[in-house]
Amino acid sequence: MENLWELIEQVQSALKRRQFQELKTLTAEMNPVDIAEIMVELRPEELLLFFRLLPKEAAAEAFANVDGDVQVELIKGFTDAELRSVMDELFVDDAVDMIEEMPANVVRRILKYTPADVRQTINELLAYPKDSAGSVMTVEYVDLKPDMTVRQAFAHIRKTGVDKETIYTCYVVDSNRKLIGLVSVKDLLFADYEDKISDIMETNVVRLDTLEDKEIVAQTFSHYNFIALPVVDKEDRLVGIVTFDDAMDVIEEETTEDFEKMAAIVASDTDTPYLRTAVTSFFKQRIVWLMLLMVSSTFTSLIISGFESSLSACIILTAFIPMLMGTGGNAGSQASVTIIRCLSLGEVEFKDLFKVIWKELRISTLCGLALGIVNFGKMLLVDHWLMNNPEVTPIVAMIVSLSIVLTVVVAKLVGGMLPILADRLGIDPAVMASPFITTIVDVLSLLIYFGFASVALGI
Amino acid sequence: MENLWELIEQVQSALKRRQFQELKTLTAEMNPVDIAEIMVELRPEELLLFFRLLPKEAAAEAFANVDGDVQVELIKGFTDAELRSVMDELFVDDAVDMIEEMPANVVRRILKYTPADVRQTINELLAYPKDSAGSVMTVEYVDLKPDMTVRQAFAHIRKTGVDKETIYTCYVVDSNRKLIGLVSVKDLLFADYEDKISDIMETNVVRLDTLEDKEIVAQTFSHYNFIALPVVDKEDRLVGIVTFDDAMDVIEEETTEDFEKMAAIVASDTDTPYLRTAVTSFFKQRIVWLMLLMVSSTFTSLIISGFESSLSACIILTAFIPMLMGTGGNAGSQASVTIIRCLSLGEVEFKDLFKVIWKELRISTLCGLALGIVNFGKMLLVDHWLMNNPEVTPIVAMIVSLSIVLTVVVAKLVGGMLPILADRLGIDPAVMASPFITTIVDVLSLLIYFGFASVALGI
Repeated sequence: MENLWELIEQVQSALKRRQFQELKTLTAEMNPVDIAEIMVELRPEELLLFFRLLPKEAAAEAFANVDGDVQVELIKGFTDAELRSVMDELFVDDAVDMIEEMPANVVRRILKYTPADVRQTINELLAYPKDSAGSVMTVEYVDLKPDMTVRQAFAHIRKTGVDKETIYTCYVVDSNRKLIGLVSVKDLLFADYEDKISDIMETNVVRLDTLEDKEIVAQTFSHYNFIALPVVDKEDRLVGIVTFDDAMDVIEEETTEDFEKMAAIVASDTDTPYLRTAVTSFFKQRIVWLMLLMVSSTFTSLIISGFESSLSACIILTAFIPMLMGTGGNAGSQASVTIIRCLSLGEVEFKDLFKVIWKELRISTLCGLALGIVNFGKMLLVDHWLMNNPEVTPIVAMIVSLSIVLTVVVAKLVGGMLPILADRLGIDPAVMASPFITTIVDVLSLLIYFGFASVALGI
Repeated sequence: MENLWELIEQVQSALKRRQFQELKTLTAEMNPVDIAEIMVELRPEELLLFFRLLPKEAAAEAFANVDGDVQVELIKGFTDAELRSVMDELFVDDAVDMIEEMPANVVRRILKYTPADVRQTINELLAYPKDSAGSVMTVEYVDLKPDMTVRQAFAHIRKTGVDKETIYTCYVVDSNRKLIGLVSVKDLLFADYEDKISDIMETNVVRLDTLEDKEIVAQTFSHYNFIALPVVDKEDRLVGIVTFDDAMDVIEEETTEDFEKMAAIVASDTDTPYLRTAVTSFFKQRIVWLMLLMVSSTFTSLIISGFESSLSACIILTAFIPMLMGTGGNAGSQASVTIIRCLSLGEVEFKDLFKVIWKELRISTLCGLALGIVNFGKMLLVDHWLMNNPEVTPIVAMIVSLSIVLTVVVAKLVGGMLPILADRLGIDPAVMASPFITTIVDVLSLLIYFGFASVALGI
């Protein structure tokens, strides 16, 4: 990364001095992903000039790798011929990704300079539902016929493979384009030239449906570790492939989304980096849940108001409310985060509900007892004896400690159960996480606390 | 997944009826990853029998894919010949992964039946620091010499490639084994048979150092989308490769770890699934932070005790403490989770600290004002007027609302800054997240609240 800033300075200095040959040498061997990193940092007036000096193929790949706003900037500056050439070189799935984020007037210009057949494919891909396998797949794959020989397959790959996203997994389709097998280039390399494809192909092919959610797509990849997965329509005809790099992007997106949901942020739709996202869009993402949670904590206020007279009789009890609610919240989110992660990795399902309850019951009893005992000792030793606070009587310490034990148990049970129930009801379990569960646990912990206090103090 | 349970029943029934031919047909075309899924669910007495009926190669791959405890169970039942045969088929990096988790007596038996050269490699790999590139790499790669022709390269791949983890990226080394280039099988397929490797190889090779942290390894993969990355020692000699599937495993582990840290769970060392992990190990993972956070909330108790006389003068103020602290905590963790995610994706660095502060300052002012205004209205309309609570005066509503505004601003600044500072100091920013920041924000929000109350009520 340090290196990157040096490179950017080098590029900017060469652009200023108009040392174009120097720039060409500098970028000739560079990875397009790194070129994209540089482009993002260049000033608008430098960007187009720099882009025009790039080798043609690297230019298209770098173009596919920069953010939407940089792409728009470039397209605005492109001549028609340049736009046509870039659209020619782009992989169709990258073109679709790009078009999905562009303003309509830019999209019209892009489609105008896209070859007719590619335009048709783009439109087909755009028709798949958002977040479906169809929307992330590409149509640039190698297909083979079962009656080809290995020699013919190699010839076919050489003839058609240059522009394919991957050639390493080739799919075998019958005359109706039904997917009937796959052959890896490794299989081909180790086979005899005269072997028939139908004899060496694997017929047990893991496949995705076009409408499959992209989260399932990502899970299938990390489960099987394939380089590519075929996508088929309802009639089992091969319509596209998803490659592992697209799956890695999906995993990254989904993870970010999960983190955001668990932090009570409305998931963002674009993948603009933090520093380039507008303050207002962060505001919109964050205020929704903040507002909701603030209003829902009206319940806690009501409960405390309801016990106001009891509290004024033993005001020291208020001092331990935050600790109790905090401990409950932490205990609950430990359970919920663990279970949410298990659900998304497929380790836990609805049928495991009672196993989870039983496990969390035992964990929480251990945790609760340990915390309760330590708290009892601490309140007597530190608050009562060391700090000499006469209000912290053994009875008060007992009320607080028992409340901790029960709160931790309740919190962990709620945290363990709610995500599973949510998942079963088709609600995203991550939304159930920390903030939402915390609100429920807050209410329950106060009721437990005041319950114990009422009984023990007779107030 | 539904399908899996049917398969398991089919397998168990066939085992019971001793229909071994049926089992062989059933598993012949099955993916080893799926076979592993079945094995995990089998009873101990079924497991070994089932394993022995598998085709040899699939057996080794399935063996590499089951959890450590199932592996131990199998190894205990293996004859010496079976153990030797499995160790023969295993990829070295899978063997190392396995050995790292085994009890010492099992490791001794494994190493005894491992071929001498493999044993040496295993020991070398075990010597790399935990979580380094060296510890996740494999030594099974294809290397080429620069003066080979494409024809010779193909011959070399055919001769040595069967047992390699990937043949699709071949690395070119000079006579001192220094890494000087790479050639993909795609390049080879599209080149002329008589071309020299040195003429077609790419010389700008992204490489990893053996000591590089595996998090960086994963980041490099998702950045460049390579199938494999070469690992070099200090003298730039090629010593191994990491393949994308290992990188995906690392990403999964790191993500789980981040989730755990943010939920105040001590990250687990093993990857045993939830339902098979012992209650006591969950207890150990969770109690540490729960205890720490409980004890640290002594500060909030002390602050509240300190303001006890003021509180008893205006007891209604206690009713809004949980709401205030909750809102502060949520606002803070929104910022911290966003920034932690940006740090781990490399979108934000230390030099961006002031940009982050400026951005969070604006976001939090907007959020704070919106929340404060709504709260002021709600307290007057609902609490004061609708519920007819005479204690909720406009002054009280003003104190609470102003505290919300300031608490949200402070919380978001703390949440945005702390992870960046932690990262700079070499502390894991995820540890800084929700629970830790919440504790700081709790203390600050109480001080703000009581500060406003003292000034406005003169108590």
